[in-house]
Amino acid sequence: MVPRYSRPAMTALWEPEARFKIWFEIEAHATEKLGELGVVPPSAAKALWDWWATNPVIDVAAIDAIEAVTKHDVIAFLTWVAEQVGDEARFMHQGMTSSDVLDTCLAVQLARASDLLIEDIDKLLDVIKRRAFEHKLTPTIGRSHGIHAEPVTFGLKMAEAYAEFSRCKTRLIAARAEVATCAISGAVGTFANIDPAVEEHVAQKLGLAIEPVSTQVIPRDRHAMFFATLGVIASSIERLAVEVRHLQRTEVLEAEEYFSPGQKGSSAMPHKRNPVLTENLTGLARVVRAAVVPALENVALWHERDISHSSVERFFGPDATITLDFALGRLTGVIDKLLIYPERMMKNLDKMGGLVHSQRVLLALTQAGVSREDSYRYVQRNAMKVWESDGQLSLLELLKADTDVTAALPVAEIEDKFNLDYHFKQVDTIFRRVFGEA
Amino acid sequence: MVPRYSRPAMTALWEPEARFKIWFEIEAHATEKLGELGVVPPSAAKALWDWWATNPVIDVAAIDAIEAVTKHDVIAFLTWVAEQVGDEARFMHQGMTSSDVLDTCLAVQLARASDLLIEDIDKLLDVIKRRAFEHKLTPTIGRSHGIHAEPVTFGLKMAEAYAEFSRCKTRLIAARAEVATCAISGAVGTFANIDPAVEEHVAQKLGLAIEPVSTQVIPRDRHAMFFATLGVIASSIERLAVEVRHLQRTEVLEAEEYFSPGQKGSSAMPHKRNPVLTENLTGLARVVRAAVVPALENVALWHERDISHSSVERFFGPDATITLDFALGRLTGVIDKLLIYPERMMKNLDKMGGLVHSQRVLLALTQAGVSREDSYRYVQRNAMKVWESDGQLSLLELLKADTDVTAALPVAEIEDKFNLDYHFKQVDTIFRRVFGEA
Amino acid sequence: MVPRYSRPAMTALWEPEARFKIWFEIEAHATEKLGELGVVPPSAAKALWDWWATNPVIDVAAIDAIEAVTKHDVIAFLTWVAEQVGDEARFMHQGMTSSDVLDTCLAVQLARASDLLIEDIDKLLDVIKRRAFEHKLTPTIGRSHGIHAEPVTFGLKMAEAYAEFSRCKTRLIAARAEVATCAISGAVGTFANIDPAVEEHVAQKLGLAIEPVSTQVIPRDRHAMFFATLGVIASSIERLAVEVRHLQRTEVLEAEEYFSPGQKGSSAMPHKRNPVLTENLTGLARVVRAAVVPALENVALWHERDISHSSVERFFGPDATITLDFALGRLTGVIDKLLIYPERMMKNLDKMGGLVHSQRVLLALTQAGVSREDSYRYVQRNAMKVWESDGQLSLLELLKADTDVTAALPVAEIEDKFNLDYHFKQVDTIFRRVFGEA
Amino acid sequence: MVPRYSRPAMTALWEPEARFKIWFEIEAHATEKLGELGVVPPSAAKALWDWWATNPVIDVAAIDAIEAVTKHDVIAFLTWVAEQVGDEARFMHQGMTSSDVLDTCLAVQLARASDLLIEDIDKLLDVIKRRAFEHKLTPTIGRSHGIHAEPVTFGLKMAEAYAEFSRCKTRLIAARAEVATCAISGAVGTFANIDPAVEEHVAQKLGLAIEPVSTQVIPRDRHAMFFATLGVIASSIERLAVEVRHLQRTEVLEAEEYFSPGQKGSSAMPHKRNPVLTENLTGLARVVRAAVVPALENVALWHERDISHSSVERFFGPDATITLDFALGRLTGVIDKLLIYPERMMKNLDKMGGLVHSQRVLLALTQAGVSREDSYRYVQRNAMKVWESDGQLSLLELLKADTDVTAALPVAEIEDKFNLDYHFKQVDTIFRRVFGEA
Repeated sequence: MVPRYSRPAMTALWEPEARFKIWFEIEAHATEKLGELGVVPPSAAKALWDWWATNPVIDVAAIDAIEAVTKHDVIAFLTWVAEQVGDEARFMHQGMTSSDVLDTCLAVQLARASDLLIEDIDKLLDVIKRRAFEHKLTPTIGRSHGIHAEPVTFGLKMAEAYAEFSRCKTRLIAARAEVATCAISGAVGTFANIDPAVEEHVAQKLGLAIEPVSTQVIPRDRHAMFFATLGVIASSIERLAVEVRHLQRTEVLEAEEYFSPGQKGSSAMPHKRNPVLTENLTGLARVVRAAVVPALENVALWHERDISHSSVERFFGPDATITLDFALGRLTGVIDKLLIYPERMMKNLDKMGGLVHSQRVLLALTQAGVSREDSYRYVQRNAMKVWESDGQLSLLELLKADTDVTAALPVAEIEDKFNLDYHFKQVDTIFRRVFGEA
Repeated sequence: MVPRYSRPAMTALWEPEARFKIWFEIEAHATEKLGELGVVPPSAAKALWDWWATNPVIDVAAIDAIEAVTKHDVIAFLTWVAEQVGDEARFMHQGMTSSDVLDTCLAVQLARASDLLIEDIDKLLDVIKRRAFEHKLTPTIGRSHGIHAEPVTFGLKMAEAYAEFSRCKTRLIAARAEVATCAISGAVGTFANIDPAVEEHVAQKLGLAIEPVSTQVIPRDRHAMFFATLGVIASSIERLAVEVRHLQRTEVLEAEEYFSPGQKGSSAMPHKRNPVLTENLTGLARVVRAAVVPALENVALWHERDISHSSVERFFGPDATITLDFALGRLTGVIDKLLIYPERMMKNLDKMGGLVHSQRVLLALTQAGVSREDSYRYVQRNAMKVWESDGQLSLLELLKADTDVTAALPVAEIEDKFNLDYHFKQVDTIFRRVFGEA
Repeated sequence: MVPRYSRPAMTALWEPEARFKIWFEIEAHATEKLGELGVVPPSAAKALWDWWATNPVIDVAAIDAIEAVTKHDVIAFLTWVAEQVGDEARFMHQGMTSSDVLDTCLAVQLARASDLLIEDIDKLLDVIKRRAFEHKLTPTIGRSHGIHAEPVTFGLKMAEAYAEFSRCKTRLIAARAEVATCAISGAVGTFANIDPAVEEHVAQKLGLAIEPVSTQVIPRDRHAMFFATLGVIASSIERLAVEVRHLQRTEVLEAEEYFSPGQKGSSAMPHKRNPVLTENLTGLARVVRAAVVPALENVALWHERDISHSSVERFFGPDATITLDFALGRLTGVIDKLLIYPERMMKNLDKMGGLVHSQRVLLALTQAGVSREDSYRYVQRNAMKVWESDGQLSLLELLKADTDVTAALPVAEIEDKFNLDYHFKQVDTIFRRVFGEA
Repeated sequence: MVPRYSRPAMTALWEPEARFKIWFEIEAHATEKLGELGVVPPSAAKALWDWWATNPVIDVAAIDAIEAVTKHDVIAFLTWVAEQVGDEARFMHQGMTSSDVLDTCLAVQLARASDLLIEDIDKLLDVIKRRAFEHKLTPTIGRSHGIHAEPVTFGLKMAEAYAEFSRCKTRLIAARAEVATCAISGAVGTFANIDPAVEEHVAQKLGLAIEPVSTQVIPRDRHAMFFATLGVIASSIERLAVEVRHLQRTEVLEAEEYFSPGQKGSSAMPHKRNPVLTENLTGLARVVRAAVVPALENVALWHERDISHSSVERFFGPDATITLDFALGRLTGVIDKLLIYPERMMKNLDKMGGLVHSQRVLLALTQAGVSREDSYRYVQRNAMKVWESDGQLSLLELLKADTDVTAALPVAEIEDKFNLDYHFKQVDTIFRRVFGEA
């Protein structure tokens, strides 16, 4: 975790205090059920919850000190709790194994992290939607290969981002379900020493599903799917970030990240306004994606488990979720306050001398009965002249002077092909598909 | 694609013939709708379908030759079709852009590939289920960290695999839905020159969903999610493969890949039976996973599209699906014919002098009122003696001779803790969770 | 391997014929030495080489047919050779293990592939150097964050690429040395059944180093380092490709990929000239990099070897080297024929109203005794006006009208700060560092 | 960075204090040279060094507070230094750009990190060498595919590791040279406002090479190569860790991680001794490798630079070096104190009824004139009987009873083939190759 790329709510989830609190809840809920089942005295759970009701401070340093001796984190924690609660605490953890606590805790953390990320995406979607409707019909040139193609609207660019992050939300909900399972099944998952009813009880209390079959651990294909999903979301962040970076290029300058008055862009070049937030998002996307391969490598644990996954998750559990949370927040801010320059969009759109309308002319020629090859040739030879003039010549004028073209198309019809609105007649259709309204 | 790691049905999907056939269907369906809409003569689609009804041979070499000149694959194909069909063919592709054809074709290919993969998983699940029930109560030692832990059954190992591949199936169905969309939206996705009804028609005919908003291309977050899912499935294959490899180790030998009479394991050591199929699966998992990162890197295309994704997909579209199909088939064969040795499992289980039952004794002591720490110490000191004797001493006998232990537990109760069946009393519960039956 | 992204010389290296020929050479050289050592009759090697001198056709289909029965590739090959050579062939492979042949063969293939790649880089370096000197002093704007910064020359851009690919060459030479080792050490690397002199002999004949200690196989950290190096080179290709793509953007258009007269950029937009070659190179870089992670995962083979690496290498041995070879060739062609537009570079450089010179003014103010903070403020307030005018206002004129500025700097000195040549006075220094000449 | 996987010396390198100290040194050395060149007063450097000689405490919080306003880290630092040093400090940073400081600082950090890692490897090599010579002739079974093959010695396993980590050291030295360069070249690398002599001076003072041509930044192919090399080293750590994990498996138990008396292996199974250190190393290898792909993705920065690499390096600069340093230290400890059980190795070696000697018999038969195919068949049929007896039958006895075998080989010669020392006659040769001594 790099502090400058983190936000408090997500970071708090991964603090030792948060982890120990979840551990306690798991143990206490389990003890409660064990009490109901008559395995331990009902007084045990009561003692635990009574102590918990005092809102005790978790003494992380004390627990760490015990772990330094026992070299076992769960035993250290249980020992510390026993010191606080007293004799009744010895009934905790009956028939359980450390991984029951650790893996169920991770499930809670990842589920809560998912909830924060889903909120993040909701906020991002709101902002994108607002900007989409604001610029639903703001013309801008569509570019394929970085080259002017045909007109689109800035609202359509936003609609595309909205659809993409809507998919990301759907995926995240699925990823949350993947990891939100509870396993309290004992040393090798057989429930030999603990009733499955305990697992069901703890799962229900913590809002998790039960893990149908665990070994000692919750199977890591679940976590692999989770982190892979974060990697896809990070890539979508990168895509929108790269779009902004392109739009802010000096020669394009159709949009800019918001630039606060006090901000210095460079120690050397005071005029510079750099898209540093979206460049940063590009890098953070790489950071989040870095979790994907290790998570995939974690799946093939040996037999009923080995512990190689653990260190990987200590890094990437926090790093991937904290960084993605930060990145979603940053992207939301960027889009929310993005400076958008419709005049510049129009200026860029016009700068190619009308070449962007060539496709329409091509079609009109074909529909007027000219062969595809001839149509292509007529348009291309005029287009090339415009291209070579660096936008000084006008395609419309050249076509009107091309007798092969005018032989097939009346001048009025040629002129009609250069009408911008023509391109936007389905914007409402697309908006309805994406937003359910237009 | 490496031929030895491929199967015909999946490979055929990626042959040029298959691709051109899908292209034709897309173009013909689109022309059909354009005819209905009055954009082109209805006779155009008829001419195309009439020709198609003759079951024409796709002349890949001829199309390639045209492409060598035009340097454009879709134009080359259209030109070739026009040569076959005649004048009516000029109405094909009206208002469409190459990517409408290419991306929708890829959607069809990935959807069909998914169908094959789903079938593969179904077959694998059937085989795993059969072996699971066959060995539902075959005792074997559960191992954590590669070290003997407590007894499980071989059926439980299979149940875990079944649950894991059931999840893989669910994920694959979701991944299929991610990529099975049709985009016929023109040069920059605005439908400027083509009615959205064409897209809807083609989508419906090809069994695809419509792409709510495309740019020039179908957004690549969909494909990233698809390949990421294949990577997770590959990792689950690796996990089961690694399990088999471990079980076949000389010192363990609880299971073996089927060894056909004519097979030579090694040119030098004729006695060797190597788990080469599962080792191969381990490698193939790496190959399939190799598609994940490039697919994630493909998401952030520039503006309305750049073509950097294309070469990546030419490699990994076929390679990842063909290899995964092969791997699933191979794994199914391995599990289907796996030689399973229950006697050896029991022999291994017994070899530690009963140490695997220590957890039960520990619990019994705690329940009999001994403190957790003392219980642990009593069991551990005897366990260490057994361990150091390399299984020559018996934990049961040592415990019965330990007065601290017998002070808390009657001998009969100690003996009861060494009963194997105790561990399997929840196997039916787990089977019902996993298979819906026990 | 995707044929369209391959070249014949590199592809031939990976054909079955090439592999079998190397196998034969390894076996024949080994038999030769075994003959010298008296282990086998000297006539054995003679018989092999005599047959080889007839330039026999390698019957791949026949060998495959034998393998289909034996399920062992080396045995199949030896069997086929024995059929051709006769009785003396039975002395081949004495004391060797299959991996001695397979791994040494792979070493030869990777060494030869490296030689081709080194040649590729040499050709690329030649072309880059020519373009660098051609445009050594062609002014163009330097951009950080995609935003105009200060002037550079196009030659400097090329010099940077030259230095980068020179490093790639050095790395490739090191990577070649990593993998160019010969292991003929028997079943577990102990030379139990074969004299180390055989290994030395074969190594020397094939131009390889000996592997100081092998297990059954050559250790895979070597191959990991090799493929990681290819991944770095691919990333450098991507960098230069992305530079060209940026320069070709419609609004920038300072350079263009060569556009042949017959080429069609788009089926729909005949005016388009798309940087498809460099976009393709961007994708191919992802493909080559995809080999890195699997190669790293191949390192941790079990004990003296497992065979999981083999399938990975069957894919990525050819794919990574063939694709990188193709990509280097394509990049060489792109740079060789790149259309470079100095006028457009100058036009872009000028378009910001002189803002790119702000750094010089800032420094001059500081050196004239104005505090850093004040200097920054004076320059920034004028720069902002220019920026907001979209290049219509001139920074020079504004500064000359700013009394805080003129109080510190005479007008003539302000004007002097806008001289372009000032920026290029160290170009020769840099060229001498990079090329050894200027 | 995860504290439990870090060591102080490496961690300190990445603390803010360490970074600011390096920044100061860069600025002060540069100011010194600027003074010599007459660009700034010589008193400026003197003022800086005089202050530095007071060993001032770096007030990280104060600098952070300034950055919170300026949003620029280098400006914040310079401002803070100016507050401490006074008026003379305004001459710092003349003609430099932030990246001159940041990138040169990173070079110093990575070079120092490399030095620590090289020391780590040296220590590891010492320990491996000691264990290698200690067990030079300790027989143990060599395993391919996890299956018993032929005898090796434990010393040979160590020799292989020694050779592998020697290669890692060589690679690390090369990787250090890749990144240990100094760039002080100004805003776009042209030295427009700063003499190249400054760069040379700072480089020399800091023990770096000059960067022959920088843009605004040091090119990131260097860092990609650096992190890729760390990834390879991590994979070699994984390999040795996996070897230990295999050797410690219950059924194998030829070696064990040192087990301290106070250590509890499991909360539930007190007898367990788990190879948790090497399992952890397996996971840490995944963590270090996770830096490779992002570092490769960092290479293709836009034009003269974008800042997307920065966040990636803030994570993986520390994480990869700190984790690798920790892992090398942990591995050194594991090997240093590894419990090695020669008796168990011999017991395992013998357990297959002599099958491991089958290769020798096979060879002897061939050399005695039996065809390869017949030899194979004779050995295989007896080997299969031994195999099926689970090591109860003896291959030697069976062969002596096989008339086809005895027809070709006298019994004494058959017996000779079962002599273990035969396999170790080249151990000295291999040791001399690896260690230069035997």
